Amino acid sequence: MTAFDRARAEALDAADPLARFRDRFVVEDPERIYVDGNSLGRLPRETAERLGARVQEWGSRLVTAWPDWIELPECVGDLLAPVLGARPGEVLMTDSTTVNLYKLAAAALDTSPGRRVIVTDAANFPTDRYVFQGLASREGAELRLLESHPVEGPTAAEVEEACALGDVALVSLQHVGYRSGAIADMEAVTAAAHEAGALVLWDLSHSAGAVPVRLDQVGADLAAGCTYKYLNAGPGALAYLYVRKDLQEELRSPIWGWFGQRDQFLMGPGYEPVPGIGRFLAGTPAILDLTAAEVGIQLTAEAGLEALRAKSVALTELVVELHDAWLAPLGFQLGSPRDPERRGGHVSLQHEEAWPICRALMERGNVVPDFRSPDSIRIGLPPLYMRFVDVWDALDRLRRLIEAGVHHEVEAGPARVT
Amino acid sequence: MTAFDRARAEALDAADPLARFRDRFVVEDPERIYVDGNSLGRLPRETAERLGARVQEWGSRLVTAWPDWIELPECVGDLLAPVLGARPGEVLMTDSTTVNLYKLAAAALDTSPGRRVIVTDAANFPTDRYVFQGLASREGAELRLLESHPVEGPTAAEVEEACALGDVALVSLQHVGYRSGAIADMEAVTAAAHEAGALVLWDLSHSAGAVPVRLDQVGADLAAGCTYKYLNAGPGALAYLYVRKDLQEELRSPIWGWFGQRDQFLMGPGYEPVPGIGRFLAGTPAILDLTAAEVGIQLTAEAGLEALRAKSVALTELVVELHDAWLAPLGFQLGSPRDPERRGGHVSLQHEEAWPICRALMERGNVVPDFRSPDSIRIGLPPLYMRFVDVWDALDRLRRLIEAGVHHEVEAGPARVT
Repeated sequence: MTAFDRARAEALDAADPLARFRDRFVVEDPERIYVDGNSLGRLPRETAERLGARVQEWGSRLVTAWPDWIELPECVGDLLAPVLGARPGEVLMTDSTTVNLYKLAAAALDTSPGRRVIVTDAANFPTDRYVFQGLASREGAELRLLESHPVEGPTAAEVEEACALGDVALVSLQHVGYRSGAIADMEAVTAAAHEAGALVLWDLSHSAGAVPVRLDQVGADLAAGCTYKYLNAGPGALAYLYVRKDLQEELRSPIWGWFGQRDQFLMGPGYEPVPGIGRFLAGTPAILDLTAAEVGIQLTAEAGLEALRAKSVALTELVVELHDAWLAPLGFQLGSPRDPERRGGHVSLQHEEAWPICRALMERGNVVPDFRSPDSIRIGLPPLYMRFVDVWDALDRLRRLIEAGVHHEVEAGPARVT
Repeated sequence: MTAFDRARAEALDAADPLARFRDRFVVEDPERIYVDGNSLGRLPRETAERLGARVQEWGSRLVTAWPDWIELPECVGDLLAPVLGARPGEVLMTDSTTVNLYKLAAAALDTSPGRRVIVTDAANFPTDRYVFQGLASREGAELRLLESHPVEGPTAAEVEEACALGDVALVSLQHVGYRSGAIADMEAVTAAAHEAGALVLWDLSHSAGAVPVRLDQVGADLAAGCTYKYLNAGPGALAYLYVRKDLQEELRSPIWGWFGQRDQFLMGPGYEPVPGIGRFLAGTPAILDLTAAEVGIQLTAEAGLEALRAKSVALTELVVELHDAWLAPLGFQLGSPRDPERRGGHVSLQHEEAWPICRALMERGNVVPDFRSPDSIRIGLPPLYMRFVDVWDALDRLRRLIEAGVHHEVEAGPARVT
């Protein structure tokens, strides 16, 4: 049996201890291969029912249900905590990733008044960069950009160098790069930042649920991320934030809202934040969103991080092998690290005709990948529901389309990303 | 027929042109009288189905549905616009009320660098006050508090006086006071603030859907509010914000996020906000929340603001009449304006034993009101589904309980608000 044999993929599926999880998700058309779960995760079968029950609870209990809802941001955060390597009371479900990055970065600036520099990677996800640019612009801070290797991502040495002047308040990086899928060395980067007196804020959007995160173990300070990718919480689902226990008293959200207020319903004159992670709440929690997020998070927690990671590595290894055998000769190159230890849950395939190839894949190949301008096709491989045969089939269809020149036939139109 | 006769309430229901809307809502137990829709509105019957369809759309179309979802914050905002007296392109559904107040107030401070004062009412809703306190604290601004009449609310004369020094960047008030239900004179207050060179930010949480709002007509600058009260969008539902058309280019959110970025999916290096209201988006829009909000907003728009207001006035008039006849002799006093022109969609009844009375009403009276510390019982009367007989019955049960001394029998426990 060779790498190029579909039977090998079938054998991997047969031996997959997580295979049963695929049935927990809605898969309407198994012929349509979805390799974009790193952008929007699939719908868990249980979500419709749980959400429906919550809606009925709203209808029948109305405001009297609030005592049972009010702790949900922290309770669902506690369910998520082990997925992030955090302890109970360190994770909060609230707002969007963007708003959470803003709150945490502003809090970090406030706690280091003598330091006005934020260090990030020039290739960080756009919303992260824009949030930091905005803070820099409004608050007289400076943004210092790492120009890291586009495939291998930022290193601890680069962080150390960027922090050498002792003027850095915050270092913020993605744990897994949204484009390359490279895993940052969270432990070494955190140590380098701490050595220089800076806090670290991790964006876990592209790692949580696919790659084990060990926030507490590495001494991370702050983190935020979305739940609509590997955590399968739905389009635009509620995001989360993490603040290490011993930092919580010291930090304060810039957005002082009534859900972060001590004795909230006394509605007193002065704002005094609650002790604990709850101080990073602002407005009224989105109860329907919390319900959908809970389902996806529970599935991930149930599967277990080690099993998810083992399968994720096997899935990305298969993509790399097939790339080398089939795609490299067709002008592709790998846009992700070759070392599986350094690679997250998706693989980036680069080609100068990436956009028309993506169109061909969608329209003629019945495969849904993800295009990232200018030249990347991201193959997302959520280990909860992805089958090895799907990977094999997707890449097989891809090579056949290119060999047949189909990407020169489709009306690609201007590049568009979903 | 007198005010004290239930037949009169029955006659009002029989003549109510909005009566048919009650059937559009889930009412599981008609014996349980819900007068807290000003805190959490009822569930529209259509919500479960529309939300279920959206969830299925997520399941079947996955990321390919995003082109149909991406405009929802502005499309649902456009549905809401007429309810607020705004034009298409002036209203955006996004984030929580708290986060929206923060974004708009910070933007207002930024646009008036020489002015560092925010004026608000000491009796403004807590989250509004806390947001402004936070901004004042972090950005070297000053909060100037009006000490307005607790029942009649802030006046244009008070605003004029507070702005007399010419140092005010922003005046922010509730359109309808959350406690008293008093309607602020939006036109006169806006004019007074503009006269002094300040912008005005209106919190519409307690008015939109019950009281006609005429943002454009009065020349208002900014507004925000929630959709979980009279707009029936569900617990912790997505909020909205309004920025008058001609101010949009000048103002900029402090939270620079990828959904406010021009050519978002080019993921370019520098943040450049889109023209128009979209620049006040930050993170990825919450699609499930937008779906639930759309249903509630459509119901309100369908009923029509004038009909809603006419019924709302009749409902609150009935409460005032019954208060005067039945409750005043039992130690109550009216905590809302007597003039119906000055009163929003709820009525506040004050009593020194308000908390045990609330407990008695809930536990023995099968009525769900709303307690506001220290002495107020709020009677919320959402005109879309409230019946006149329910008002009559609720107040009848209330007086009977007090006459029987039931509030001295219940285990009230410490005051608690839902």
